[in-house]
Amino acid sequence: MTRDMPGFFNVLAPDDALKVIRERLDPTVEKEPMATHEALGRVTAEDVRSPEDLPSFPRSTMDGFSVRSADTFGASEGLPAYLELRGEIPMGAASQIDLSPGQAAKAYTGGMLAGGADAVVMVEHTQPVDANTIEVLRPVAPGENVVQVGEDILNGDVVLPSGHVVRPQDIGGLLALGITGVRVARRPRVAIVSTGDELVPPDTAPGPGQIRDINSYTVSALVSGAGGIPVSTPLVKDDLEAQRETAARALAANDMLLFSAGSSMSNRDLTASVIDGLGSPGVLVHGISLRPGKPTIVGLVDGKPAFGLPGNPVSAMVVFDLLVRPTIYLLAGCPVPPEPPRVQAELLRDIASQAGREDYVQVKVVSRDDVLCADPVFGKSNLIYTLVRADGVVKVPLDKGGLYAGEVVTVRLY
Amino acid sequence: MTRDMPGFFNVLAPDDALKVIRERLDPTVEKEPMATHEALGRVTAEDVRSPEDLPSFPRSTMDGFSVRSADTFGASEGLPAYLELRGEIPMGAASQIDLSPGQAAKAYTGGMLAGGADAVVMVEHTQPVDANTIEVLRPVAPGENVVQVGEDILNGDVVLPSGHVVRPQDIGGLLALGITGVRVARRPRVAIVSTGDELVPPDTAPGPGQIRDINSYTVSALVSGAGGIPVSTPLVKDDLEAQRETAARALAANDMLLFSAGSSMSNRDLTASVIDGLGSPGVLVHGISLRPGKPTIVGLVDGKPAFGLPGNPVSAMVVFDLLVRPTIYLLAGCPVPPEPPRVQAELLRDIASQAGREDYVQVKVVSRDDVLCADPVFGKSNLIYTLVRADGVVKVPLDKGGLYAGEVVTVRLY
Repeated sequence: MTRDMPGFFNVLAPDDALKVIRERLDPTVEKEPMATHEALGRVTAEDVRSPEDLPSFPRSTMDGFSVRSADTFGASEGLPAYLELRGEIPMGAASQIDLSPGQAAKAYTGGMLAGGADAVVMVEHTQPVDANTIEVLRPVAPGENVVQVGEDILNGDVVLPSGHVVRPQDIGGLLALGITGVRVARRPRVAIVSTGDELVPPDTAPGPGQIRDINSYTVSALVSGAGGIPVSTPLVKDDLEAQRETAARALAANDMLLFSAGSSMSNRDLTASVIDGLGSPGVLVHGISLRPGKPTIVGLVDGKPAFGLPGNPVSAMVVFDLLVRPTIYLLAGCPVPPEPPRVQAELLRDIASQAGREDYVQVKVVSRDDVLCADPVFGKSNLIYTLVRADGVVKVPLDKGGLYAGEVVTVRLY
Repeated sequence: MTRDMPGFFNVLAPDDALKVIRERLDPTVEKEPMATHEALGRVTAEDVRSPEDLPSFPRSTMDGFSVRSADTFGASEGLPAYLELRGEIPMGAASQIDLSPGQAAKAYTGGMLAGGADAVVMVEHTQPVDANTIEVLRPVAPGENVVQVGEDILNGDVVLPSGHVVRPQDIGGLLALGITGVRVARRPRVAIVSTGDELVPPDTAPGPGQIRDINSYTVSALVSGAGGIPVSTPLVKDDLEAQRETAARALAANDMLLFSAGSSMSNRDLTASVIDGLGSPGVLVHGISLRPGKPTIVGLVDGKPAFGLPGNPVSAMVVFDLLVRPTIYLLAGCPVPPEPPRVQAELLRDIASQAGREDYVQVKVVSRDDVLCADPVFGKSNLIYTLVRADGVVKVPLDKGGLYAGEVVTVRLY
C-alpha cells in the first residue's frame, strides 16, 4: 500500500489514531479455562451467569433474635413486647425451630432465621427477663435486619459480563456461587523487535558510539502490566531484509508487533517499509500530533496490529500508554481498559505548548504545605532518567497553548 | 495484655489506627537478588548507584551535521556558512573524524559526535552544495542538539533509592547502566486464617445455614495486588483452641496474620482473644471509627502485624485498602505505597453520614452527557455483589455530615 492511498493518514491526533486501529481490528478472542482464584487481572471471555440464588436462605445481619415482626408492633421501652425464647439457631446449622406467635429464637450475624420469623431484633433493643423470656423495646418492620433469599444475586443473573477485567471482589463473587472456574481470554502475545546498529544487550559493555538496548525491556514490562505476554526477539541491525525476516517470523507466532527502532528519519522509513512489506493493509498512520511521540507508526498486518514506537524512551512510554495499552486490551476482548492511577495536583510552573498538538510533560509529584503539586521535569525525551525521575505525566490538550502555574491538573502516574 | 493497659486504643480514626502500627513496626527487610528485567513491582532493598556516566559519549539528538558551533555564528538564509563535509559517523561506531575549523560530518539521531564538534545542526537547517560542501542556514549554540556525557546520569548518582517500587522505566534506567541485577525486599508472606462454623470451601455445596468461604480468596487476591504472598490456611471452626493453634503456626511461618472471622460479637471477641494470646503486645486497636469496617482489630504479635478483618466482604475490602495494604508495603520497606487508581466524578445523589466517622460508599462510575458521574450503590455491606456491582468507593471525611449531589468527588477505583 502506498502512502497516498485512501485509508492512510499522515498525522493524526492520538485519539483518532487509536480510532483507526479500533475500527479496523476485529480480533478473535481465544478462550482458555482458568481456576477462579487464579483469574485476577484476566479478561472474561463470556458472560458468567449465576447458577443459584444467593443467599440460599434468609440470613440475619445482626446479633439478636429472630421474631415474627407483627409481635413487636407498638413495642417501646415503656411498653415492651414479651416474647418466649425458644433457643438459638447455631451458626452454620439449619433452623430446627419454628416460631409460633409470641416466640423468638437467638440469631447470630450471618446465621439462618428461625422458621416463621420475618425479621431480627438487634440484641441492643432487647432485655432478658428470665431464661425463657425477653423484652423487645422497639418494633421491627418485616424484613428488617434480614438478607432475603436471592437478595445478593438471583439464579440466572449475569455475574460478570464478557470483556471484564477480574478484580479481587469478582473472585469472591464467583466463588460465593460455587463457580470455581471461568473462561478467560488468552493473554495476547506481543512481539517486541528492537532494532538499531548502535544497540548492544544490557549485559554487554558498549563500545564507543554504542548504547545498551533498554527500550525492549521497558516495553516488555509495560506489556506485562497491560495483561499481555511480551516476546522479545534478538536485536536486529538496521537492514531491511534482516528486519523483514525477523518481523515476519515474530508476527506469525504472535498477536501483535511492536517495533522499537532508532529515532532517525532513516530508521523510521525502514520500520514503515518493513510493516508495509509484511501484509495488508500495512502502515495506516505515520506520525501523531503528539509531543513527545510524533514519529509513531500505526499499522495493521493481516488483522494483527503493528506499531513503530519512537526510539526515545520517554516518547515510547507516552505512545505505549495512549495507543498500545488499549490495543492489547482490545485483543483480549476488553473495550475499556482499567483506569490507570491518577492524582490531582497544582502545577508549579507554566508549561508552554502548541495548539493542534497534544503535549505530555513529565512531572514529579511533591507535597508543598500539604498540597499535592506537580513539578515539571524538563528533561530531554531521549534521556531515560527523565522518566525515572518523574512520577507521571500531565497532558496539555490539543486545543490549548499551554498550562499555567497554579492550575489544578490531572497527573497520570506511572 | 488487657484492654485497659496503656497503649491500647478503643476506637480510633483509620489514619490513627495505621499510625499505631506504623510507629510500632520495625521490620527487618530481608533482601533477595533479582534479575533487573524481572523486578517489576518489587521494592528495592538498598540504594542503587550508577557505576558509570550515561551517556558515555556525546550523542546527537537530531539527524544533521556535527559542527564546531563557532563556525555557524552569524549564519542565515541570506548569508549561509559554508562547511566542508568530511563524511559521516555511522550509528553504533566510534567517530573516526576530527573536525578542523570550517568542517562538518554527517550525524544521526543517537549517534556519536565527530571529534572537535560541540553542536549539531539539524538537517532541515542546511542545504547541500555539492558532494563535499553544505550550507548552514542558522547558527547553533555550543551544546545545541547534543546530549553531553553524564547528562542522563552521573557515575555515583543514586539511580533508585531503597524502598522504591520498581516501574517499567526503572528497569530501563538500570539496564541502561548495565545493572542487570538488583537486591529487592523479599515479598512479605501474609497468612490468611478464615474462621466460622458456617463456612464451607467454595467447591462444596453448602447445606442449610452454611455459606461458601469467599473472604479468604478475595483477601488473597488483594494481598497479591499489594506485593505480598498470600498463604491460606484451611478453614477453622469457632473454637478458641483450634484458632489459637492454627494462628500460632501461621504466624510462625509468615510475616503477618490476617484473621477473617464472622461479624458477630462472639466472633470478634474470639479473634481478639486469639491475637492477645499469641504474643506481645497483642491487640492494640479494637474498633475503627469507620463505616463499613468498625469491628476491625489491629494488633502486633512479637513484631508481626495481626489484623482481625470484619467478616463482611465490603467492610473487609475497605479495611484492607486503608490499613492492610500500607502495612504490607511497610513490611517490604516501602513507606509510601503506589497510588491506587482514582477518578474525579460528579456525585449523582446525596450521601448521608455522621461526623466523627469516616464513611466509604460504594459507587458505580457512569458517563452522563460526557461527564463522569458517581452513582452510589446502596447495597448492604454483607453482600458481595455490592462490591462486584461497584467500580470504587467515595470517602466521606471524618468531619463531614455527608456529601451532596452535584459535588465533585474522588472515586478510589478497585
